[in-house]
Amino acid sequence: MTLDRTDPESEIARAAEAFGNWGRWGADDRLGTLNFLDEAKRRQGASLVRRGVSFSLSQRFDMDGPQKGWRRRTNPVHTMLDTGTDASLGLQGFPHGIGGADDVIAMPLQCSTQWDGLGHIFDHGRAWNGRDAAKTVTSDGDLVTGIEHMAPYVAGRGVLLDVGHVVGTDGELPDGFAITEEHLTATAEAHGVAVGRGDLVLVRTGRLARARREGWGEYAGGPSPGLSFTTAGWLHRTEIAAIATDTWGFEVRPNEFEHAFQPLHQVAIPNMGLLIGEMWDLDALAADCATDGVHEFWLTAAPLPITGAVGSPVNPIAVK
Amino acid sequence: MTLDRTDPESEIARAAEAFGNWGRWGADDRLGTLNFLDEAKRRQGASLVRRGVSFSLSQRFDMDGPQKGWRRRTNPVHTMLDTGTDASLGLQGFPHGIGGADDVIAMPLQCSTQWDGLGHIFDHGRAWNGRDAAKTVTSDGDLVTGIEHMAPYVAGRGVLLDVGHVVGTDGELPDGFAITEEHLTATAEAHGVAVGRGDLVLVRTGRLARARREGWGEYAGGPSPGLSFTTAGWLHRTEIAAIATDTWGFEVRPNEFEHAFQPLHQVAIPNMGLLIGEMWDLDALAADCATDGVHEFWLTAAPLPITGAVGSPVNPIAVK
Amino acid sequence: MTLDRTDPESEIARAAEAFGNWGRWGADDRLGTLNFLDEAKRRQGASLVRRGVSFSLSQRFDMDGPQKGWRRRTNPVHTMLDTGTDASLGLQGFPHGIGGADDVIAMPLQCSTQWDGLGHIFDHGRAWNGRDAAKTVTSDGDLVTGIEHMAPYVAGRGVLLDVGHVVGTDGELPDGFAITEEHLTATAEAHGVAVGRGDLVLVRTGRLARARREGWGEYAGGPSPGLSFTTAGWLHRTEIAAIATDTWGFEVRPNEFEHAFQPLHQVAIPNMGLLIGEMWDLDALAADCATDGVHEFWLTAAPLPITGAVGSPVNPIAVK
Amino acid sequence: MTLDRTDPESEIARAAEAFGNWGRWGADDRLGTLNFLDEAKRRQGASLVRRGVSFSLSQRFDMDGPQKGWRRRTNPVHTMLDTGTDASLGLQGFPHGIGGADDVIAMPLQCSTQWDGLGHIFDHGRAWNGRDAAKTVTSDGDLVTGIEHMAPYVAGRGVLLDVGHVVGTDGELPDGFAITEEHLTATAEAHGVAVGRGDLVLVRTGRLARARREGWGEYAGGPSPGLSFTTAGWLHRTEIAAIATDTWGFEVRPNEFEHAFQPLHQVAIPNMGLLIGEMWDLDALAADCATDGVHEFWLTAAPLPITGAVGSPVNPIAVK
Repeated sequence: MTLDRTDPESEIARAAEAFGNWGRWGADDRLGTLNFLDEAKRRQGASLVRRGVSFSLSQRFDMDGPQKGWRRRTNPVHTMLDTGTDASLGLQGFPHGIGGADDVIAMPLQCSTQWDGLGHIFDHGRAWNGRDAAKTVTSDGDLVTGIEHMAPYVAGRGVLLDVGHVVGTDGELPDGFAITEEHLTATAEAHGVAVGRGDLVLVRTGRLARARREGWGEYAGGPSPGLSFTTAGWLHRTEIAAIATDTWGFEVRPNEFEHAFQPLHQVAIPNMGLLIGEMWDLDALAADCATDGVHEFWLTAAPLPITGAVGSPVNPIAVK
Repeated sequence: MTLDRTDPESEIARAAEAFGNWGRWGADDRLGTLNFLDEAKRRQGASLVRRGVSFSLSQRFDMDGPQKGWRRRTNPVHTMLDTGTDASLGLQGFPHGIGGADDVIAMPLQCSTQWDGLGHIFDHGRAWNGRDAAKTVTSDGDLVTGIEHMAPYVAGRGVLLDVGHVVGTDGELPDGFAITEEHLTATAEAHGVAVGRGDLVLVRTGRLARARREGWGEYAGGPSPGLSFTTAGWLHRTEIAAIATDTWGFEVRPNEFEHAFQPLHQVAIPNMGLLIGEMWDLDALAADCATDGVHEFWLTAAPLPITGAVGSPVNPIAVK
Repeated sequence: MTLDRTDPESEIARAAEAFGNWGRWGADDRLGTLNFLDEAKRRQGASLVRRGVSFSLSQRFDMDGPQKGWRRRTNPVHTMLDTGTDASLGLQGFPHGIGGADDVIAMPLQCSTQWDGLGHIFDHGRAWNGRDAAKTVTSDGDLVTGIEHMAPYVAGRGVLLDVGHVVGTDGELPDGFAITEEHLTATAEAHGVAVGRGDLVLVRTGRLARARREGWGEYAGGPSPGLSFTTAGWLHRTEIAAIATDTWGFEVRPNEFEHAFQPLHQVAIPNMGLLIGEMWDLDALAADCATDGVHEFWLTAAPLPITGAVGSPVNPIAVK
Repeated sequence: MTLDRTDPESEIARAAEAFGNWGRWGADDRLGTLNFLDEAKRRQGASLVRRGVSFSLSQRFDMDGPQKGWRRRTNPVHTMLDTGTDASLGLQGFPHGIGGADDVIAMPLQCSTQWDGLGHIFDHGRAWNGRDAAKTVTSDGDLVTGIEHMAPYVAGRGVLLDVGHVVGTDGELPDGFAITEEHLTATAEAHGVAVGRGDLVLVRTGRLARARREGWGEYAGGPSPGLSFTTAGWLHRTEIAAIATDTWGFEVRPNEFEHAFQPLHQVAIPNMGLLIGEMWDLDALAADCATDGVHEFWLTAAPLPITGAVGSPVNPIAVK
């Protein structure tokens, strides 16, 4: 598949037409591809718990995170309402020697390991399922497809595609590397794992490992390996429920068009209704999968049900 | 067991002595009773996924929550950085028709459905495992037992004890009702379920159902059914990994001593190292359990790994 | 002047037509009636400093404020980044015995004593000076009339009109009391003070004094004395630079039309370009003015230059 | 005066002993040197309003500010609760064509132009007036000397000492330049202005002008010109009410001792009770003073009365 790199708008329109899912689950749908994750898939996923070992796929949420302020995305600010120092000095006014600590947080919902909600991206003023973006996401939040509607469902079979290890060097792909359908297929074959309807697919590029080694640099917003625009067909045809990567932006950066900004998002979220995860930490899980040769597992990655949110921090838990 | 209601300090000291776990998992322990949740328990839990149906046990996070400002605990404030209205009007400056929405949140970590971290409560200046509270939780957060350390582990066998239905009227216990060991045991027997080492136990009182029907009122901080101080022995003896309720404060309110504040917390968190969840929404799960008669399930309730946090919002997912 | 209480839209249109100032200070104007406050007026104002006594006209900013959550307006949440307890215990890691405390705040800009910026209210999609509201105030804030543009100018002659004392009972007007032009004129005459071009006019109703005595209740958003819709002509004719009250909403509540919401705002801000202050604490100043009989003074009430803000907290300082 | 650069602790102790003011205004004092600013000084200050021109001495508060995250100090995050785009599209649900915009802010109180409160710095566990730091500033804020107590008073005679212009090159001092008493005196003489009891002294170094030209770089926390530790005696002897600079940290950076952190703060705030302002924008005022040769003016710089705050953003207004 060749892209006209000078004409993203036409290419996006073509992909949206070919791979869109508007109306597939009815006019009132709020779940998009998460509809593919059914009870049978959950039973299959649960059967993958063999050893009982669990992994968190989340980065830590703190001021040492990757954000630099782009579009007012800061790192989380965590402050204390009460502390052990106050308690220790007897300053809290509680009876019988009890003391307490409490805390608050302020953070962008997309500051670290997160899901993009269906209201996160629009295509020419249209949100998921063809809705008017202006009537879907206002200053009051996402009035229709807020991420709270997904709260109970994101638990099923996870599949790791460690493209960094299979295709890259020392487990890492370079910035600007566009992962194609061929790379995804080759990786799945190398792992001996199949990807299909309702799966939660995790694509490891090694970009986070590099940031961890070399410092954040432009991890959040800069050059990165990621999915090629040309994978839109694969994303659609496989009928996966969700996909997540260890990169800031899921798709390759710089983008594959001359003047573009996240064109695969524009196809995948508002047109396909695909649930996308970003900045996941897949390294410990990948190391385990490399060791035991098993790249499928039970995965729970439930967004916080923040009413009207277009994204959510998440601590995904894989159990093998 | 009879309590001297005039002397909470002595009763707490006695319970702490009898039911404390300091040193049980070594001097460096950061997990407390979560140590009981091992890989075998996870395998057992996963085997409980029979139908593949999933439930979120989280309340929604928004301004309509229960908080009234006690100790600066507010409801979550969710605001938008970008919206569909801006995108729709072509005001975002992006190419090829892409538009986006982003959002931020500010919230106390204990504002709604949450876990108490091990640094949340102190006993006479001592934190979990006997540590000096002042050196454990400062303005920089919990430097030792921050909730990020629990991130990978809270997935296992869940057991619902619907005391509201078994002991109460119309599924609800009245405010001030102290749930005793006998109530817990009778409920487990009525459900035909056993509670043991490593389990994640959910106790439903019906308090949230009442708040949902009648309005929040004093849900957050006021009178409530909850665990009796006298259950400390049961909590210790059963070797459960964690416990959560549908109430604000886990234990009965008013407390069972004349001048007291959360005495069971003082035993359970810093002395026993027990992981406690509060304000969980157990109603949909309870209805399902009442229908199919199965009160055990796979439960994932991973806290966000907020560095140094003494609590975390959580969206617990039960799968049956 | 009689109002058709069933037709706010026509009455507003009439008043906007009669009392609007669009174009008066050029197409690029960002200041509205603040243009009336010139250097001569500042010289006059400074000459009113006779005794050198200063008054803060600000309520305190804290969790004990009036907000109840309407439209996500909360009270300020102030938390510490570092404390004296940490410093005292030697936990901060600084050399030679220095210790420090730092703090953060999260607050709506209209939570307490504040100015409404010119981008705060629109009339049928039009912002101040006839601008398209959609192109003026987006999710990025007020791109044109952000309150930062007023930062240097709000210092001049202040005049207190204590309508509560002159017209009310025991210094207070009842809720729902509509202050008319006649009340304003009578009060100025009783005080022996003239109101004119460029003045910063403070209208005391006594509503805050009542809230202070009886509790906040519905102070923020509920019934209140305030300016009648019929004062629009007086506000325009006097050519005052700004007006502020001790009430939540400046104008009388309930509003004087059957189905209405803040109709005088709709005339005064987008059409007249009037700078409006709310929730000011005028009581100490009013007591002093009653004592010495002087109701004019030097007033500095500079908004924080928050880029793109449509309001700002302010600590107004009157000096007599 | 020579400093032993290897022994900051002894030098600080000596200066604290020589220049401390504990008890000078009684045991209950909350104002420190602000006590020097009396009504006569305010009358003198007001008399300096000759032309009626006003200047804001505040930087703008936004994400483009100087903070880099040191000690969780971020730049302000300003978000909208309602916008003109929503209003324009008729999505707000208000009657008769009214629309509105509202906003919130989250910011450290010391992120930009600000006052240090008296609870901001401690000396060996002692806060201003000899108080126990641990009992003065807890997680609940500054319980004694919160900046709200200063709210009405910071209005008086301002004096600009443009050391950058008098002593520097092209109006700027280089980083690491320690401003001594001699520099301050020479600058005052060059300006023909006297500094004395109760004055609000503004020292311009040109550091902000350089940051504005070259980018923030390490403006917040890095090398900078500033007051020498040796000016402690001058600060004390002149009996000024407050001092502010156009730099991040008031005193010279790197500090003049080998292993030190802000030693002049340690003398000036907890021992002397001096009110210190930082990150003020003095450039426009300085240009005007250079033009008309008048370096004194009426200055109002009222902190927001945030209960228990150890600092406050401020928009200082100078009027000449």
